[in-house]
Amino acid sequence: MARTIALTLEYDGTNYVGWQTQANGPTVQSTINEALEKRLGVPVKVMGAGRTDSGVHALGQVCSFPTDRDLPLSAFREGVNVLLPPDIRVIEAREAKPGFHALHSAESKIYLYRILLRETGSALEHFRAWKLGEDANVGQMRQAAGALIGTHDFTSYAAADAEPNRIKTVTRIDIQEAQGTVAPELRIEVEGTGFLKQMVRTIVGSLIDVGRGHRPPHWIAEVLSVRDRQAAGRTAPAWGLYLKQVNYPAGSFEPGAE
Amino acid sequence: MARTIALTLEYDGTNYVGWQTQANGPTVQSTINEALEKRLGVPVKVMGAGRTDSGVHALGQVCSFPTDRDLPLSAFREGVNVLLPPDIRVIEAREAKPGFHALHSAESKIYLYRILLRETGSALEHFRAWKLGEDANVGQMRQAAGALIGTHDFTSYAAADAEPNRIKTVTRIDIQEAQGTVAPELRIEVEGTGFLKQMVRTIVGSLIDVGRGHRPPHWIAEVLSVRDRQAAGRTAPAWGLYLKQVNYPAGSFEPGAE
Repeated sequence: MARTIALTLEYDGTNYVGWQTQANGPTVQSTINEALEKRLGVPVKVMGAGRTDSGVHALGQVCSFPTDRDLPLSAFREGVNVLLPPDIRVIEAREAKPGFHALHSAESKIYLYRILLRETGSALEHFRAWKLGEDANVGQMRQAAGALIGTHDFTSYAAADAEPNRIKTVTRIDIQEAQGTVAPELRIEVEGTGFLKQMVRTIVGSLIDVGRGHRPPHWIAEVLSVRDRQAAGRTAPAWGLYLKQVNYPAGSFEPGAE
Repeated sequence: MARTIALTLEYDGTNYVGWQTQANGPTVQSTINEALEKRLGVPVKVMGAGRTDSGVHALGQVCSFPTDRDLPLSAFREGVNVLLPPDIRVIEAREAKPGFHALHSAESKIYLYRILLRETGSALEHFRAWKLGEDANVGQMRQAAGALIGTHDFTSYAAADAEPNRIKTVTRIDIQEAQGTVAPELRIEVEGTGFLKQMVRTIVGSLIDVGRGHRPPHWIAEVLSVRDRQAAGRTAPAWGLYLKQVNYPAGSFEPGAE
C-alpha cells in the first residue's frame, strides 16, 4: 500500500553542514535518511521543503518520503526520534495525500532571523542568534522592508551562485522587538513563496545597515532595482536563521492524521 | 593598590560539573580562575555568589576577587572573554567597594526555571529547559506557591545533604506563561535571600505536581510544615535552571564604574 509520510522537523544546525546530503560532513537530510532506514529496514531518501545552509536551524522544516510499510504515524515520530541524535527531532508525522511533495507542494515558507541587541556575546545564544553591539532603529528598518514586499527580481539579495530564475515573491516582513531569555532581541520574520540561496540573510544584513543608520531606508529599494549582489549589505551569519514554518494548501494531508 | 573586581557572568552549564572547583571534571569557577591567571600572570581564586550544580546555567552569576593590578575594567571583560571558551562570558566588570564579597554581600538572588510545554523534546532547547508533555494549571500553581513566601524551614524543599541551617527567606515566586522561540513555556522565577542545595528545583518539581493536578494546591504548605524531603515532589532537572541575577545593596560598587 503506497503512502506518503510528511515529517515536521526541528533541528539545531550547528553541527551539520546543512540540510542537503553531501560528501564533506554530516547533513540533516542524511541523518534522517539513516534513522528511517534503521526503522524501516530499507533505504529511504527524504525530500526537504528547503535547503538550509550549514549552521542554519529549523523550527519547522518539512520533509516527505514514500513508503509501503503499514506502520502507525507514531512509528515515524517517537519511533524515529529514538534513532536520531538529540539535536534533530521529528515534532509531527502526517499522512500526506497522494502526489504530495514537501518542496513542490509548499505554498509558502516562513523564516525567522534572531538578532541579540547586546554589546557582549552570549554564552547561551552562541550559534543561535547574531549578536549586534548596538541598538537598531526598527522604524527605519520597517519602512525600508516595505520595498521588498511583492514579486521582484531578487538578484541583489541572493548569493552570486543562486539559481538562474531570480523572480521571487515575498509576502510579509515583520520586525519585532522582544525580550529573550538572555537579552533584548530583534526577531525578523520573512514569508514568501520561494527563496534564493542566502536571500533571507542578505535581506537581514542590508536591513541592519539601515537600522544602524549606515544607509537610509530608500537604499533597500535602490539595491533591489540594480540587480547586483555587490550593491547589497553583508550576508548575516547562518546561526541567526531558522526555517520556522512551511505552509501547504488545505487538504494536503489526511484528515485526523497524526 | 588593592582593589576588588566583581564580574557578572553568563554561562551554559551543560559541559561543566557545576560552579565549584572540584576534581571530577571542568567547573565554571576553575575555568574563570585559569583565564584570569593567564590575563594577570598570578594565580587568582574567584568567589561566586551561588554554587550552581552540574548542568545549571547562569544569566547573571557574580564572582569577585582581589587584585593589585592597575588595569582598566575592560581588561577584565573583553580581555578575559578572549581567554574563555564561548560557553562562558563576562558580561560586566565592576569595581567593588572595599570589603565587597560576591557571596556574603549579596542581598538576594533570582533564579529562573524554564519548562517547555510540548509533547516532543526540543532539538534547540535540549539541556536548556525541562520538557513537560502536557499543559499545567498555572492558577493552581500560583495559589500553591503563595505558601512558600516568607521565612520558613525549607528542609522539605532541599537536598538531604543541604547545609544544617534550613531557615531561608523567599520573597517572590512568579509563574509566567510565555511564547519561547520553540514552544510555549512556563517561566518560574524564585527570589530569596538565600537558597539551600536543590531548593529551587525541588520547589519547581513540587509545583508541577500541583499544576498537573496530581496534588491539590494546599499540599505545598503541608509539605513545608513536615520538614521532610521525602514529602515533596521530584527534583526538577538541572538543565532548566538559571541563576538569573544577584542583587547587592546600593553603594556596593564604585560609581560610574564599567
